[in-house]
Amino acid sequence: MPHILLLDSTLRDGAQGEDISFSLQDKLNIAHTLDDFGIDFIEAGIPGANPKDLLFFQHAAKSSFSHAKICAFGSTRHKGIRPEQDEFLNLMLAAETSHVVIFGKAWLLHVDKIIKATPEENLDMIADTIQFLKDRGRTVLFDAEHFFDGYADNPDYALKTIQTALAAGAHSVTLCDTNGGSTPTFVRQTTEAVFQSIGKESAIGIHCHNDIGCAVANSMLAVEAGATLVQGTFSGYGERCGNTDLSVLIPNLILKKKCTCNIPRLQDLFNVATKLAEISNIAIPGTKPYIGKSAFAHKGGMHIDGVTKLTASFEHISPETIGNHRRFLTSEVSGRSTLLAKMKPFAPQFTKDSPEISLIVEKLKEMEFQGYQFEAADASLELLIRRTLGWHHPHFQLILYKTTGEYPAPNASEPTSAMIQIKVEDTTEITAALGNGPVNALDLALRKALHVFYPCLEDVQLIDYKVRVIDSDAATAAKVRVLIESTDGFHSWTTVGVSTDIIEASWLALQDSIEYKLDVLK
Amino acid sequence: MPHILLLDSTLRDGAQGEDISFSLQDKLNIAHTLDDFGIDFIEAGIPGANPKDLLFFQHAAKSSFSHAKICAFGSTRHKGIRPEQDEFLNLMLAAETSHVVIFGKAWLLHVDKIIKATPEENLDMIADTIQFLKDRGRTVLFDAEHFFDGYADNPDYALKTIQTALAAGAHSVTLCDTNGGSTPTFVRQTTEAVFQSIGKESAIGIHCHNDIGCAVANSMLAVEAGATLVQGTFSGYGERCGNTDLSVLIPNLILKKKCTCNIPRLQDLFNVATKLAEISNIAIPGTKPYIGKSAFAHKGGMHIDGVTKLTASFEHISPETIGNHRRFLTSEVSGRSTLLAKMKPFAPQFTKDSPEISLIVEKLKEMEFQGYQFEAADASLELLIRRTLGWHHPHFQLILYKTTGEYPAPNASEPTSAMIQIKVEDTTEITAALGNGPVNALDLALRKALHVFYPCLEDVQLIDYKVRVIDSDAATAAKVRVLIESTDGFHSWTTVGVSTDIIEASWLALQDSIEYKLDVLK
Repeated sequence: MPHILLLDSTLRDGAQGEDISFSLQDKLNIAHTLDDFGIDFIEAGIPGANPKDLLFFQHAAKSSFSHAKICAFGSTRHKGIRPEQDEFLNLMLAAETSHVVIFGKAWLLHVDKIIKATPEENLDMIADTIQFLKDRGRTVLFDAEHFFDGYADNPDYALKTIQTALAAGAHSVTLCDTNGGSTPTFVRQTTEAVFQSIGKESAIGIHCHNDIGCAVANSMLAVEAGATLVQGTFSGYGERCGNTDLSVLIPNLILKKKCTCNIPRLQDLFNVATKLAEISNIAIPGTKPYIGKSAFAHKGGMHIDGVTKLTASFEHISPETIGNHRRFLTSEVSGRSTLLAKMKPFAPQFTKDSPEISLIVEKLKEMEFQGYQFEAADASLELLIRRTLGWHHPHFQLILYKTTGEYPAPNASEPTSAMIQIKVEDTTEITAALGNGPVNALDLALRKALHVFYPCLEDVQLIDYKVRVIDSDAATAAKVRVLIESTDGFHSWTTVGVSTDIIEASWLALQDSIEYKLDVLK
Repeated sequence: MPHILLLDSTLRDGAQGEDISFSLQDKLNIAHTLDDFGIDFIEAGIPGANPKDLLFFQHAAKSSFSHAKICAFGSTRHKGIRPEQDEFLNLMLAAETSHVVIFGKAWLLHVDKIIKATPEENLDMIADTIQFLKDRGRTVLFDAEHFFDGYADNPDYALKTIQTALAAGAHSVTLCDTNGGSTPTFVRQTTEAVFQSIGKESAIGIHCHNDIGCAVANSMLAVEAGATLVQGTFSGYGERCGNTDLSVLIPNLILKKKCTCNIPRLQDLFNVATKLAEISNIAIPGTKPYIGKSAFAHKGGMHIDGVTKLTASFEHISPETIGNHRRFLTSEVSGRSTLLAKMKPFAPQFTKDSPEISLIVEKLKEMEFQGYQFEAADASLELLIRRTLGWHHPHFQLILYKTTGEYPAPNASEPTSAMIQIKVEDTTEITAALGNGPVNALDLALRKALHVFYPCLEDVQLIDYKVRVIDSDAATAAKVRVLIESTDGFHSWTTVGVSTDIIEASWLALQDSIEYKLDVLK
């Protein structure tokens, strides 16, 4: 099977999913995570439609990506004007990406009823938009929107749209099942017909939606028919039922269809998907293929017996292949090799059989049972390991804190106050601060109290704060998991805290954040 | 396309899913719901393995089902004994069902390593188990476990197992992808090869698992190759990543492949799936094809514009076909048509040109600029509209609240306290509560204070609480958006609050939640 290029649209199509809302910092984190994993193209937003997206491109231009091409996304020019008069195309140029993705209409129904153009006008719009962008140095990936519905309706016209795009110099043409209703056999046969019409050597992509639950299968069948570019999102986020889930499609292509991709470490899949889910603040469903917590969990007695005798008896692959782990639902077991991989940068001397590793695994299990998750909180994981190894000595000790919030606020801009007393060696320090909430006030008071002892904390600030209810049955009385991302201007790190009390959970994450700076980053 | 029989295994394979645990009453409710919907065979449990399952069969025998055949499930007899000596087979007979499902091994690896039998012994076990049950009046459906892995390993032997079952008088033979790792093309080609080997007239079924996200597609391809029985669960529950999701496969077969099934009212699908999910106490993921809340939800501006002009432009079917409904998600990229669509159920008298609509749009823009998002907060949106129209009069007024949190906590299980004073007409009420955080304490105190005036609030409780930092540059000093989901046992509704102070943001969402119950739900 061939070499497959991967386009991720989490930041564009994924952002159209219900419950998804990315901040600028989220977008940058996602782009770097995808780049590290080996994604080839990152479709990052619509500069023409959304000023926030334009801001992302300005930041991305200053950032360095090791492999991925950042792509701006937009449509063919508007009807009745020249490309250079099109405000959206000019904003797309202002995004200053080397690659752009342009979508155009391939279904006459849309040409006629939605953009109200003639079939010829639409072809002109495709041709001169691509030409315009190529003339300005852009590599243009063309998305034939609604291609499969268009082909079912009028195959000649649908083919004409992609021939036009290729003739105008598009890098590749992607066949889109925009409404997500095309069946596997129809997708395979149509993709085969496309290659018969345009020749085997053309670069054809596939972009599916999951409205009938077949996005992954449809993408695989298009690849079997000759497509060499696949589009999707992590972990299937997108409009309505979502896009092709790359967290499932990528291992399917590599492990089941023996394709090659530019993914150096497939065993990072689980961590990458988990990190992206945490950034998106969307829980991964337990039954998600490959990356769900239940994906390699065995409950039935006959299954547990079989797996104990021979793992292949009820597992289609070994979970370590993609970084997940096997669980027997009667007794939890967690993964040593993942742990060793995590420890390599700072504690490379341990092996699977080191007694220290057993201790850490025990501790991790206990914490996970309490509701901790460390996939997106590397700094807290490293501290947990250091504490268990006896390598970490706390730089300060909390004696007490008190927070108060009131309405009407005595001070409108800082309605909450925190008082804190800490101890560093034999010296205690007590101080207080006002803030915009109990956690903000506590953060300010803590750093104020520690400043006397550790002036380097002056540069540390929190850049993101996320709260997730773990057991949603009990709502505000349930356990909460707080993630805090901090920076000192050079590094950024994430810590986690869990408690039934949101202030305590925040405190635990805050404490880890400061300890990590003092102990690890110095 | 042919007539397809449906076997649901929610009560057997579904019960092996993590987080699934059915009571006897749950099982009976599920069986009757499936029967009413038109399912042909209900695989209801393993009398041999589970005494609770035997109890179910005793109750089911006294119950009347209008269409479905209740099936007991079990394996071929144990090695080295006669069927009449097999305790499990005798318990299966004791279940007194007219139909039984027997699974046997089709993969030599399992024959050799798991049940440790010779290839011939295994064929004998298949043949005489089926014969034994047929002699006692049972109709026997045979499941060829691991058929696809077995066929990949040794096609001749795998085919021999199903030929043996058919020769022994099995009603049908189902090809199982037990480990869920088979690809669509392999499933289609293998099913075609089965028909070539055993003849076109045999009754062949398909049973898939979703470990590579292809269970639905694989089942469709097997049907195209000639299978006439499909097995699955609602809504895909099962071991590991789950079984074929019948809530997706059934509409695919009927609407996309033009098969017939014994389903009199496909438009009941949404309600049936929702009811089964409630009995199972598992939330349906929003993005679930056909039945998820987002399945026909439109967020992107271009999509909303398209659907408003012509629903087929971004919907593969009309949502009413399966009983779901269209939703327009309100977001900054969308406009008046979305708003009017939202207002239709409670304020149908307005049009695009009504001056009230301009007022509401202005107000929405102002709120969105402050950081509000109403996509997931329908109840707050309706209150905003009612307030702007002058239709809403507050049921209570906040005079003051004070929250305190402290460490070490004076009361470990409820470390936070809130004091609140409210006014209803001319009466003020002051009270306090302890909680697991300031918001929990405030929620409890508010409902305690209001209980005197509005006893109906007793049934209201919060079921989810989510916090999101909006502008991540300033971290804990940034604005936060709080989403609260509430229920009164009949309805659930979501409200939103935004503030730089997390307690105030929570308060705003809490206030809307209570006002929505009092004003709209009454």
